[in-house]
Amino acid sequence: MFQELLQQVVDQTEGAFAGILMGFDGIPVETYAAAAEGANVETVGAEYSAVLAQVKQASEMLELGTTNEVSVRAENMTTIIRLLNEEYFVAVTVAPSGNMGKARYLLRIQAPKLLENLV
Amino acid sequence: MFQELLQQVVDQTEGAFAGILMGFDGIPVETYAAAAEGANVETVGAEYSAVLAQVKQASEMLELGTTNEVSVRAENMTTIIRLLNEEYFVAVTVAPSGNMGKARYLLRIQAPKLLENLV
Repeated sequence: MFQELLQQVVDQTEGAFAGILMGFDGIPVETYAAAAEGANVETVGAEYSAVLAQVKQASEMLELGTTNEVSVRAENMTTIIRLLNEEYFVAVTVAPSGNMGKARYLLRIQAPKLLENLV
Repeated sequence: MFQELLQQVVDQTEGAFAGILMGFDGIPVETYAAAAEGANVETVGAEYSAVLAQVKQASEMLELGTTNEVSVRAENMTTIIRLLNEEYFVAVTVAPSGNMGKARYLLRIQAPKLLENLV
């Protein structure tokens, strides 16, 4: 059912390449790829997961509260990451011309459903 | 004149706290604070600068091209960071209810002017 939830986000976002549910340790739980283009979502997730853990830590140290979302816009791809809990995050990769706002919205909507199923 | 450019971004963004032009080494070039609320922008910039360098590196390793923008949405504050070149970035801190899209837009518009003056 993680696959379904990822698919809903990816398929409803114009220009989305793929989605992934992953642990902060860089180990994927589930992935869904809509397009062969774009970097491999597991590699992207694994690379960013280490950085994410540090962003979380920095935000807490700065007393900014829980980190909910991180996005990285690079020349060839935008990655939108929604942090779910202390252990997992969900990420979607989108083409530079894709609808980043839609991806953010859908991730926010699906986050509680993913969390529910993560227990 | 960095101050002026920062001020334009901050004052035109609903809910913006402050703006900063900073090196990836965490040393600020210029800051502009509109509100006393929100975390100190120099501390935020310094904390995130180390992480930013790693995001840049990860994106390059993944062949995603140059990283242009990173945003971190935490419970009490959103930080939007525009990477300018190999040495400097500009960041704006915004209230959770603030206009993050406007901040992103204004940073994109002002980035070339900041860069021009960074030579």
